[in-house]
Amino acid sequence: MSFIENLKKSWQQNNSLVCVGLDPDLSRLPSHFEKTADSILAFNKEIIDATHDLVCAYKPQIAYFAAISAEKQLEQTIDYIKLNYPQIPIILDAKRGDIGSTAEMYATEAFSRYNADAVTINPYMGYDSAEPFLRYKDRGVVLLCRTSNSGAGDIQDLLVDGVPIYEHVAKLITEKWNINNNCLLVVGATWPDQMSKIRSIVGDMPFLVPGVGAQGGDVGTMVKAGQTNDGTGLIISSSRAILYAGNGVDFATAARAETISLRDTINQFRNVISPSLS
Amino acid sequence: MSFIENLKKSWQQNNSLVCVGLDPDLSRLPSHFEKTADSILAFNKEIIDATHDLVCAYKPQIAYFAAISAEKQLEQTIDYIKLNYPQIPIILDAKRGDIGSTAEMYATEAFSRYNADAVTINPYMGYDSAEPFLRYKDRGVVLLCRTSNSGAGDIQDLLVDGVPIYEHVAKLITEKWNINNNCLLVVGATWPDQMSKIRSIVGDMPFLVPGVGAQGGDVGTMVKAGQTNDGTGLIISSSRAILYAGNGVDFATAARAETISLRDTINQFRNVISPSLS
Repeated sequence: MSFIENLKKSWQQNNSLVCVGLDPDLSRLPSHFEKTADSILAFNKEIIDATHDLVCAYKPQIAYFAAISAEKQLEQTIDYIKLNYPQIPIILDAKRGDIGSTAEMYATEAFSRYNADAVTINPYMGYDSAEPFLRYKDRGVVLLCRTSNSGAGDIQDLLVDGVPIYEHVAKLITEKWNINNNCLLVVGATWPDQMSKIRSIVGDMPFLVPGVGAQGGDVGTMVKAGQTNDGTGLIISSSRAILYAGNGVDFATAARAETISLRDTINQFRNVISPSLS
Repeated sequence: MSFIENLKKSWQQNNSLVCVGLDPDLSRLPSHFEKTADSILAFNKEIIDATHDLVCAYKPQIAYFAAISAEKQLEQTIDYIKLNYPQIPIILDAKRGDIGSTAEMYATEAFSRYNADAVTINPYMGYDSAEPFLRYKDRGVVLLCRTSNSGAGDIQDLLVDGVPIYEHVAKLITEKWNINNNCLLVVGATWPDQMSKIRSIVGDMPFLVPGVGAQGGDVGTMVKAGQTNDGTGLIISSSRAILYAGNGVDFATAARAETISLRDTINQFRNVISPSLS
């Protein structure tokens, strides 16, 4: 089954658009964890066990693992999800992008080594840098469009014939790159007007939405701007606000409560939610 | 000493603008190597020993290591250069780019874990995604501007007020991002006209130049387009054409010959080369 078909099932199954971002920062783990790479695996497992029935996806951020030589723990985190909660799609947040021969190696890293169901990609280098990922028809390729950070506009907002770059990127991907129907876009929660415009360009293409939680994007405005007619279309990612909701031994309970709160806040604004919860 | 000061010394010392790109692909190593991650370390060591007096820099491409779980061998490759040839700068080719808190982790990966002297970065996400790298004043930050690949123009050539994106990026970096004088740009050898224009915008800012060798950019045209008045300003990277020049046990001898040939071809077109060789 393709990534997007799996994602649709996952949205339904848990009645949730929430994605928990796994950004395990040793300096922020509860104090009962030792400062070792194995602690982030143990931390991730507790977070996953406490939230698996509340999310549509998990998104490990590879930088947090690479900074402390914890590639093995990233593999083990993904293996843990695949073994225990195989229905939940895993998006590797890596924002890779390089020329074709190197991009093939990055695709091997994401899809073979880590066995991720989808990976984030930077489109700046153009089609041939994305193609080695796009050819994996059953995986998702999540391309940066309008990111959530304060400097996003430095390049993405430059106007080409009166139209910002990020809209050109959205059109390019929709019209030319999405031949295998496996593209998604990163659209930050912090820019609801832009999100609404991008939605009008790309049809039902799913958005990975960072920027709620620690980054401060308003949930209701964003859901109304970005959802599809059936009340889905969004993978709303929160990392730090969930992972560090508590800092005691009960951190996973606090993370669960925060995830429920985000899921329910989001669901208030959805056009349609699954009958069992409506 | 800063990265750019070290680079200037290195250009002089070996009278060379050549950078050997370390893209060790197990499927292309000479047949006497076993297909193991340790083989790429052994391969890299022979390449380095055979070329250290001919180059201004080495550029390991992290994707080739990550695809086969060879992070340890990447660390060991860099350690080997630092130990034996400490005067030669090392550019980690990683093309990272993410929001601030994640970018800090990527900077830790490149500059602390791997101890690289410089790293390549994708500017699409804007200033705050580059700042965590830029604050390392003694390291180099090599930002994608006009890349060498065929699809480079998909986004980089879009015209903003009649000026292509890559020129806006060059201006932005020169005027706003280069406050610590540690920025460099990636400019592909395959686009000499664009390189010449970028040189006119950025003054003496060094260029990392992929695209000679396997990618086919013409050396003379490119050197004339991109060099600074003193005959430097370019880090001309060749990977596959050097690494796989031979495929027997004498591959390192073939790599050395290919590196000499590239160095000498480049030096024919330089405005000034060091007195000892001129």
